[in-house]
Amino acid sequence: MGLEFGVDWYPEQWDESRWDDDARRMADFGIRVARVMEFAWALVEAAPGRYDFGLFDRALAALDRHGIKAIVGTPTATFPPRLLDEFPGMLQVHPSGLTRDYGTRRAGCFNHPGYREASTRLAAAIGDHYGNDRRVAGFQVDNELGHEGSDRCVCENCQAAWRRWLEAKYRTPAAMNAAWGTVFWGAAYERFDQVPVPRDQVSSHHNPGLLLDYDRFCSDSAVSFADAQVSALRERVAPGKWITTNLYPPPLSNAIDHRSLVASMDFASWDNYPIWGPQDAPLPWQATAGMLAHVRGLKDGKPFTVMEQFAGMQGHVALGRLPDDRQAALWTVQAIARGADRIVWFRWRTAPYGQEQLCLGLHDGDDRETSRGAALRETAARAKAELDALASVRAPAEACVAFRKDDARVLREQYLSEGLTLRETPWMQAGFDMEFARAFAPFATFGVGADALGAESLDAETLGRYRIVSLPLHQMADPALVERLGAWVHAGGTLVLGFRAGARTLGNFSPDLPLPGLFRPLAGVTVRRFESLGGGSARLRVGLLPARGTVWADLVEPDTAEPVAWWTDRSLHYRGTPCATVNALGRGRVWYLGTSPDPLGMVFLYRRIFKEAGVDARFLGADVERVPRLDESGRRVDLLLNHSAKARRLLGRALGPWDWAVVPSRRPARGR
Amino acid sequence: MGLEFGVDWYPEQWDESRWDDDARRMADFGIRVARVMEFAWALVEAAPGRYDFGLFDRALAALDRHGIKAIVGTPTATFPPRLLDEFPGMLQVHPSGLTRDYGTRRAGCFNHPGYREASTRLAAAIGDHYGNDRRVAGFQVDNELGHEGSDRCVCENCQAAWRRWLEAKYRTPAAMNAAWGTVFWGAAYERFDQVPVPRDQVSSHHNPGLLLDYDRFCSDSAVSFADAQVSALRERVAPGKWITTNLYPPPLSNAIDHRSLVASMDFASWDNYPIWGPQDAPLPWQATAGMLAHVRGLKDGKPFTVMEQFAGMQGHVALGRLPDDRQAALWTVQAIARGADRIVWFRWRTAPYGQEQLCLGLHDGDDRETSRGAALRETAARAKAELDALASVRAPAEACVAFRKDDARVLREQYLSEGLTLRETPWMQAGFDMEFARAFAPFATFGVGADALGAESLDAETLGRYRIVSLPLHQMADPALVERLGAWVHAGGTLVLGFRAGARTLGNFSPDLPLPGLFRPLAGVTVRRFESLGGGSARLRVGLLPARGTVWADLVEPDTAEPVAWWTDRSLHYRGTPCATVNALGRGRVWYLGTSPDPLGMVFLYRRIFKEAGVDARFLGADVERVPRLDESGRRVDLLLNHSAKARRLLGRALGPWDWAVVPSRRPARGR
Amino acid sequence: MGLEFGVDWYPEQWDESRWDDDARRMADFGIRVARVMEFAWALVEAAPGRYDFGLFDRALAALDRHGIKAIVGTPTATFPPRLLDEFPGMLQVHPSGLTRDYGTRRAGCFNHPGYREASTRLAAAIGDHYGNDRRVAGFQVDNELGHEGSDRCVCENCQAAWRRWLEAKYRTPAAMNAAWGTVFWGAAYERFDQVPVPRDQVSSHHNPGLLLDYDRFCSDSAVSFADAQVSALRERVAPGKWITTNLYPPPLSNAIDHRSLVASMDFASWDNYPIWGPQDAPLPWQATAGMLAHVRGLKDGKPFTVMEQFAGMQGHVALGRLPDDRQAALWTVQAIARGADRIVWFRWRTAPYGQEQLCLGLHDGDDRETSRGAALRETAARAKAELDALASVRAPAEACVAFRKDDARVLREQYLSEGLTLRETPWMQAGFDMEFARAFAPFATFGVGADALGAESLDAETLGRYRIVSLPLHQMADPALVERLGAWVHAGGTLVLGFRAGARTLGNFSPDLPLPGLFRPLAGVTVRRFESLGGGSARLRVGLLPARGTVWADLVEPDTAEPVAWWTDRSLHYRGTPCATVNALGRGRVWYLGTSPDPLGMVFLYRRIFKEAGVDARFLGADVERVPRLDESGRRVDLLLNHSAKARRLLGRALGPWDWAVVPSRRPARGR
Repeated sequence: MGLEFGVDWYPEQWDESRWDDDARRMADFGIRVARVMEFAWALVEAAPGRYDFGLFDRALAALDRHGIKAIVGTPTATFPPRLLDEFPGMLQVHPSGLTRDYGTRRAGCFNHPGYREASTRLAAAIGDHYGNDRRVAGFQVDNELGHEGSDRCVCENCQAAWRRWLEAKYRTPAAMNAAWGTVFWGAAYERFDQVPVPRDQVSSHHNPGLLLDYDRFCSDSAVSFADAQVSALRERVAPGKWITTNLYPPPLSNAIDHRSLVASMDFASWDNYPIWGPQDAPLPWQATAGMLAHVRGLKDGKPFTVMEQFAGMQGHVALGRLPDDRQAALWTVQAIARGADRIVWFRWRTAPYGQEQLCLGLHDGDDRETSRGAALRETAARAKAELDALASVRAPAEACVAFRKDDARVLREQYLSEGLTLRETPWMQAGFDMEFARAFAPFATFGVGADALGAESLDAETLGRYRIVSLPLHQMADPALVERLGAWVHAGGTLVLGFRAGARTLGNFSPDLPLPGLFRPLAGVTVRRFESLGGGSARLRVGLLPARGTVWADLVEPDTAEPVAWWTDRSLHYRGTPCATVNALGRGRVWYLGTSPDPLGMVFLYRRIFKEAGVDARFLGADVERVPRLDESGRRVDLLLNHSAKARRLLGRALGPWDWAVVPSRRPARGR
Repeated sequence: MGLEFGVDWYPEQWDESRWDDDARRMADFGIRVARVMEFAWALVEAAPGRYDFGLFDRALAALDRHGIKAIVGTPTATFPPRLLDEFPGMLQVHPSGLTRDYGTRRAGCFNHPGYREASTRLAAAIGDHYGNDRRVAGFQVDNELGHEGSDRCVCENCQAAWRRWLEAKYRTPAAMNAAWGTVFWGAAYERFDQVPVPRDQVSSHHNPGLLLDYDRFCSDSAVSFADAQVSALRERVAPGKWITTNLYPPPLSNAIDHRSLVASMDFASWDNYPIWGPQDAPLPWQATAGMLAHVRGLKDGKPFTVMEQFAGMQGHVALGRLPDDRQAALWTVQAIARGADRIVWFRWRTAPYGQEQLCLGLHDGDDRETSRGAALRETAARAKAELDALASVRAPAEACVAFRKDDARVLREQYLSEGLTLRETPWMQAGFDMEFARAFAPFATFGVGADALGAESLDAETLGRYRIVSLPLHQMADPALVERLGAWVHAGGTLVLGFRAGARTLGNFSPDLPLPGLFRPLAGVTVRRFESLGGGSARLRVGLLPARGTVWADLVEPDTAEPVAWWTDRSLHYRGTPCATVNALGRGRVWYLGTSPDPLGMVFLYRRIFKEAGVDARFLGADVERVPRLDESGRRVDLLLNHSAKARRLLGRALGPWDWAVVPSRRPARGR
Repeated sequence: MGLEFGVDWYPEQWDESRWDDDARRMADFGIRVARVMEFAWALVEAAPGRYDFGLFDRALAALDRHGIKAIVGTPTATFPPRLLDEFPGMLQVHPSGLTRDYGTRRAGCFNHPGYREASTRLAAAIGDHYGNDRRVAGFQVDNELGHEGSDRCVCENCQAAWRRWLEAKYRTPAAMNAAWGTVFWGAAYERFDQVPVPRDQVSSHHNPGLLLDYDRFCSDSAVSFADAQVSALRERVAPGKWITTNLYPPPLSNAIDHRSLVASMDFASWDNYPIWGPQDAPLPWQATAGMLAHVRGLKDGKPFTVMEQFAGMQGHVALGRLPDDRQAALWTVQAIARGADRIVWFRWRTAPYGQEQLCLGLHDGDDRETSRGAALRETAARAKAELDALASVRAPAEACVAFRKDDARVLREQYLSEGLTLRETPWMQAGFDMEFARAFAPFATFGVGADALGAESLDAETLGRYRIVSLPLHQMADPALVERLGAWVHAGGTLVLGFRAGARTLGNFSPDLPLPGLFRPLAGVTVRRFESLGGGSARLRVGLLPARGTVWADLVEPDTAEPVAWWTDRSLHYRGTPCATVNALGRGRVWYLGTSPDPLGMVFLYRRIFKEAGVDARFLGADVERVPRLDESGRRVDLLLNHSAKARRLLGRALGPWDWAVVPSRRPARGR
C-alpha cells in the first residue's frame, strides 16, 4: 500500500465549526488518515448501552470530504464515571499500595469482570457501527495497554484471578511449590488461595518464581482484556479493515508481552517519542532504532504503524529540551527506515486544557503553521516521493538481537547490578531495555541490518536467515534453542553471547552447571567468578586497544575459546584475566562478552565480529545511521540518516544537518 | 505606636516559681509583649466546655508585674486527646495517603465539623475571658494554619466538603466539566459526588482544572476555619485589641491564600526563620526580603508583626549551620526595615523536652545570657532608638513584583522545568517561591523600594503608585489587568514580563494565541518556540556582556520590540536568537525576559531597566541591602544593611561586619 | 573447646541422595558443625501440632556418619501458610504503612499471641525431640530477630501491647505525660489507650519520649518472643547443649537491644558480611572490627560464634564487588582475632531458587571446589593450627568504646546532622553505628585492644580493667556513671568524650546545664555554641598538623582544660576557637572532641591520647590490623592482619597480600 501519513485528532475538544477546516488543512498537509475517539467513551455511551456515535459520524464526514480515512479507537483506557458508580472495585491498585483514582488514565483493572464486559460491549457497538463504514481504515484497541505502571495490579480482582491462573497452570499447590522452590524460606502453600499478590515490601522480597509468574499472569490479563475487544470487532468488521493497538516504551521491561498482545491483531503499532517530559536530551538514536526493530519483530518483519509520532514537545507536568525541527523530522524518517509504513503524528493541535496541555501538536492554538509542522510536512512529502516503494518491502536483516521476555521480567526485580537499573519514574525499572539498546547499538552504528526478536521466534528456519545472532542478558537457556544455535553456528553462524548467558533455566532456577551453563560448550569458556561493576566501569583492552567495561565483570576462563579482550584495570585483583573471547565452532564462531563494553569497546569488538562474520559493516561516524533496505524490485539501497547538526559527505552524497538520503548500494541484497 | 519587641513564652513548660523571674528579665531585655498559650488547649479546657484559664491568668499576672502585655493564642493547632475519642474521623489525610496521627501538630482536618465547632467554642471562651483584659494586647488565631503540608487534606470530610464546594461554584456538573475541559481523557462527571479528591497517583495526573480548584477549596477551608475563630473573638474583644495569625514560608506555593487568611484580621504576622533545620546556609537575604515584602503586601503596606523571629538555631530532628550572632541580629533589623513594627523572638528559653528540643530560644536551660541573646538585646535597643519613628510609617515603593496565587498553585503540580522545583520536604514544591525570589532580588540588590502584591491588587490607583511592575511566571493573564497595564505603560510605566507570561487564561486554559498571549501587543514579541533548561543553564549575552540563563529558554521573535539579550551558547541550535527584549510603548516600556537570568544577567539587565525607568537604583555590592524608608515627617532615609562579615564604607558610613545604619537620603521620597 | 568451623546447610533444598556426599565433603573441609532447619517450619509441622522431624533426623544421621554435629534452628522467622489462615492479623505493619506479606521473611508480629504461642510450642517440640540427641551441639532461636526493619511494627497487636507496656511502666497517664513532656504541643493523655503507635508522618514528628519508649517496647517485644522459645528449649535440653541466636548489623541503630536479646542465651552469635548486596566496596575493616567487638561485649568478652560468615558474594536482588579470595578468607581470621571461637560459613552450596539465588555458598551448583572455598579451607586449617589455643582465651583489652543503646535509638529519629545519617535501605538509619565505627577505628588502627560495651556495663570493677574509655555520641548522661568515671579518671583513667556528651538526661530531656552537662566538671570545658557540618567538613589543626572535622562543630570554651585542636577554616566565623581539649584530672585525663575528626585528625589526636595514657599503641599502616591476644598460658601475642593486596614486612614478619601472622609480643599482657 505504500507509505501513509496520519494524525491524531480530537474533534470533541473543539467546536464542530472548525472540523471542516481542520480536515481540509490535513489534506493539504499530506495526511490521509486520522485517529479519533480513543478517550471518548462518555461521549459515545452517555448511558449504559445507549450508544450514540453522532459526534464522530459528523467528524468522519468532515474527514471524508477531504479524502481522509479514520482510525477508530475503542475508548476504554478511560471510562465514564457511572462505570465506577456501578463497579466501585474496578480501580487498579499498584503494588506500591496506591489506588489509581477516577479521572486519571488506565485506572481500570483488566481483571474486573464489569469493566471488561462493558469494554467488550462497547467494542462490539463500535464494530456494529463502523465495521462496514468505508470512511474507516481500521481500529485501535484501547490505548497503551499496560503503560505507566498499569501492567501490574494487586487489587482484589487480580488476587482472585491470579489464584485461578495458578490453579490452571499448576493443578496442584505441590507442583507450584516445586516450580518456585518455595522450600526456600519455607512457604509451602497448601491451597492456591494462600498465595499472595506481590505488593511492595519494606524489605525481603517475594519468591522469584512467584514474581515471574505474576508478571506472566499480568500479561495474560491485559492480553485477554484486549483480545475480547479484538474478537468483538473481528466478528463485525469488514475484511479490509485492520485492527491494532498502540504500544509504548519500555517494551521489554513491561510485564506485558507485546508480542502476545498484538498476536490477534493485524500489525503492531508504536508510540514513538524520542524525547518526552523533562528529559534533558533525546534518547540516543541507536536506542530508538532498537525499539523500532523490536516493534517490527512483533509481527516478524511486517511493516508497522507509528500511531503517535513525535511532532512537538511533550510532557504532562514538565518539559525538556527542544529538538531542532529538522531533527524531529528526521525521527519520522528513521521510523520509516526501520520498518514503519504509516506515521501518525501526535497530534493535530495542542489541547488547551486537560492533563496534556504541555503535549504540543502540529499546531498551536492559533492554527498557524508552526516551523515544526512545516518541517514535518516537507519531510513527509519527500519521504512519500522517495520511500513509498520501500515502505511495503520488508527490511532485510543479516543479524538478529534476540531477547527473552522472561529475562526482562526477572531483571526488573532481580536487577543484578546498579548498572542495570533505569528508574526514571516510580513504576519503571527498564535496565533490561537499556542493556538491550546497548547490544543493538553496534548493528545500528555499523549499518548492519538487524532484527530484534523474542528468542522463541528463533526456530531453525528463522535462524537460517541470519549470519549473526546476539543474545544480551540471556540468562534463561532453552536447551532446544541452545541445540539449534549450536547447529546453526556449526553451519557458519556467528553467535554473540553476553554476560550471564545460561545463568538460569527456563523456570528461573540456577542450573547445576558452571556458567555460561548450557552455552558453555558453544562458548568454550567457563565463568566461575564475576562481579558487578555497579554504576562504575573498569579498564580493559580489546587486543591492544584500550576501552572500558561497565555493569558487570566476568572473569572468563577460556576452555577452547581464544581471548580477544582482557581486564587491565589496576584496581582489579583479577587484571590480566580475559573478559571477552571467541570460540571457533565448525564453520562458525561464538563470541562471549563478559561485560557491557562502553561504546568504544563495542566498536573495537564488533569491528572484528562483523569482519569475521563477513557481513557488510561500515562505521560512518557515531551520528550516522545506515539502514539497508530493498526496493520493490528487490534491489538493495541504503538509507543514510545524519543524526547531527553537522553537514557531511557520506558515500558520495552531501548530507545537510539532520538530513537523509537514499543511496543505491552495490552490495548484494542479503538477509531475508 | 512605634517599634515593639516581644518573645514567645511557654509558662506551662516550667515551674510557676520561675515565672516572675522570667518576666523580670524579659522587661530588662526590652521586651514588652509575650505570646502565650497557642499549644495549651488541654490545659485550658480539661473537660468539654469546662474552661479554666487559671494557669495563664497567673502567667499574665507575672508578665503584668513587669509591664509586659500578652498575645494570647487560640490553641487549636493541637488538641486534647479526648477530642479524637469523640471524633475519630477528624485526622487529616495527606494526598500521599499518610494519616496524621494524634500527638503531632496540625493533625485536625479543617473541614471536620466537630473539630471546627470545638475550636470556635474555645476561641469564644478565650474571647469571653480575655476580651477585656487590659493585660492582653491581642490574639493569634491558631498557629501556622496550613503549614507542613496541612494545606491539603483528602479525608472523607474533605471529600464531602469539596463536592459541596464544587456544587456551590458550578451549579451543574456540565459547567464544571466545561471549566476543567474534562472532555480531555473523557471524565464527564454526571454528579458532583463522582468527583474524586486528588490523592497522589502512581502516574498520570488529575485534570489541572480539578487540581487548581482543589487548592482553592483547601484555601477556603482553612480560611473559613480561621474566620470562625476571628468572628468568635471579634464579638467579644474590646476594640483596642487586635487579632492576627502567624504565617510561614513558602508563602506562595502553599495552597492557602495568605491574603484571604488575614483578610478578617487586623494585620498580618509572619514566622521568620532565615535558617531552619539542616540547611547548610541561610536563605539568601534577598529571598527573605521578598518574603517580608510579601507579608507587608498582604495588608497593602500596613506594618506587620514577626510573630516568631529567629533567635537561636532551629530544627525538629537536625540542625544546620550556626549564623554569627551579629548576622542573626541583623535579620531582626531586616524585618523592621522591610515593614515589621513588632518583633517577637522565638522563644524565651529552649524547651527541655518535646519535638523542639533542637529549637534554641534566647536562653539555654541554665538561663544565663547567651551571646546570641546579648546580640539581640543590644540590636533591639539600638533599633528602638533609631528606627522607632520609621516603623509606623509605611515603607515607600517605586516598584511592585506581583504574583498570582493561582499561578503558584498551578506550578506546584505542573512545574514546567526541573529548574522550577524546590522540594526540600515531601510536602513542599516551592518552585514558584524560588522564581519569585529571583525576580525580587534585583530590586533588593539595587535598593529600589519594592512591594510584593497579588495581581488582583493592581487596580489603576495602585498601579499609579509604581514606576515598575514585574510579573514573573505570570502565566494566567487577566484581560482587564492587561488593559490596565497597557494604559499604565503608555502613561510611562515600566512593565517587566517573565517567560510564560500570558500562557494561560484565568481558568488555566491555554489561549488560542501565540505567546505571550494577551501580553503580546504590550511586549511586542512572539514566542513560538521554547524549551526547558532543566537544572542546567545556557550562555547568553546582555548587550556584549556574557551571562547565563537558567530554568527556561524562550526563542523570542521581536515584532515591535528591540532585542537586549541573545542566546549565545554553542550547544543551542537557536543561538543568535534574542532572549530578552524591550518594547517602547507610549511613554513607557515593556521588557520581556525569556529566561531566568543568573545573578550576573539580572544585574546587567536591571541596570538598564532601572536606568530607563528613572528610578533610584544603586548597586552597592551583592551583600548590601538598601531599603528606602520615610521618617515621621516624610523625609526619605536609607537603611543600609551589611549582610557580610566584611567591614565596608558605604554612602559615607563605616559599617562593621553584619552592621547597619540609617542614612539620610538626598533623594526625594518617591513611591507611595 | 578451641576453634570450630561449621557451615549453614539446607538439606531440604536438595535430593536426599546427595546428603551423605555433602557431609563427607564437609568433614574433608574441616567442618565439625552444620546449622540446619531454621526456615523449615512447614516441613516439621505439616499440620497443627503434628510434628515430624524425619527429614532432619535423616540429615543429622548423614552428618553424624561423618562426625559433624548439628546446630538446630527454631524455624520461626517464616511460617506455614496455614498459620496466616488461622491468624490473619499476624502480619507485621511497618511504620511506613506497608504490611509485610506472606512468603517473605520476618512477616510475623512478635506481639501476636497466636504466632507466639505456635512458635513457642514448636520450640518445645524441637526441645523434646532434639534436647538429648547427641548429634546436636546446640540451638539457634529464630533467625535475625528484628532485622530488615522488623524491629518496629505498628499493627493492632502492637498497639494494644504498647498500651499495656506503658501502663505497666508508668501506672498513670500523668506520670507518662511528665516523663515525655507532653505539655509541649499539648498532648495530655488521659488514658493509655489514647497513645498512638508512631507511624511515619508527612511532617511534624511524634514526641521524642514516645518514640524512645516505643523502641524500648519493640525491643522488649522481640526479647520476650525469643525468651519464650529459650525457656521452652531450656526445660528440655540436656545441659551440655547451648542456645543462641544470630544477630546482624547495624547492631546499635536497631530498636532491639542485642544484649537483652542474648541475656537468656549461652553466648552471642553474629552474621558477618563485610560486603553484601550492591555495595561497591567492603566495609572498612575497622568497622567490622568494631562490630565484632560489640558482639564479644554482649556477653562480657565470652567467645562468640559467627553463625553466618561470608563465604561467597551475597545479595537478594543485586551484587557488588568481588573480594579477592584471600581477602574474604582474611575476614574469617579477623572474626577469630576479635573473639569468635566458632565460624559457620554461609552456606554450603548456593540455592538454585528462592530469594537468595545470588547468595553464593562455598560451592556452586556443580559441587566442584571453588577458589573461594579452597582459600577458606586452607585458611581454616591454618587457623585451627595456629589459633586454636587462643580462641578460648578472652581477648585482652586496655580500652573500651562504650555506647548507650538509648542514645542510638534517639539518634535514629533525631539525627542532629546530615553527617549522622546512613540510610542505605528504607528501614535503616544507622548514623549512630557509623559514628561508633569512627570512634572505634583509632583503637583498631593503633592495635590497642578494645572492648565495645553498653554504658550500663561500666561498673567500677569493669572500669578498673581499662586505661581508656571512649564515649562517642554519649548524649544521655547517667549521674552515677559520671561519678564512677570521675573517680576512675582521678585514679589514672583516660576518658575520651565526643561532641554532644551530656546533652540529655537518661529520660532524654535536655538538662538545665551548659554542655557537656554533667560531664562539664570532668571535661573542664563549656560548649555554648555549636553547629552541624552536615555532609561537609571544616579545616582544623591538631597542634600544628592540619586535618578536618566532619559532622559537627562545637565551639569549645576551655575552663580548666587545655586546647589541643582548633578550628582553622576560613569559612568559619569562629575560626581560632578550640575544637578539642584535654583536662588533667587527678592522675588521669579527660579528652573532649568537639567534632568527628577525619581519619587523619583521628590519627593525630589518638597518637597523643594513647601516648599520654601509656598504652601499647603502634600505627603500622592504615591497612594493618594488630590484635593483642593471650595464649593459653597467658602469654601475650599479636595477631597481625594485612588488609591489603600489598605484601609487607611487619614486626619482623613478611606478610603476603591479605596474609596474617601470629607474632609473640614482648609487651606484657595487659588489660583484662
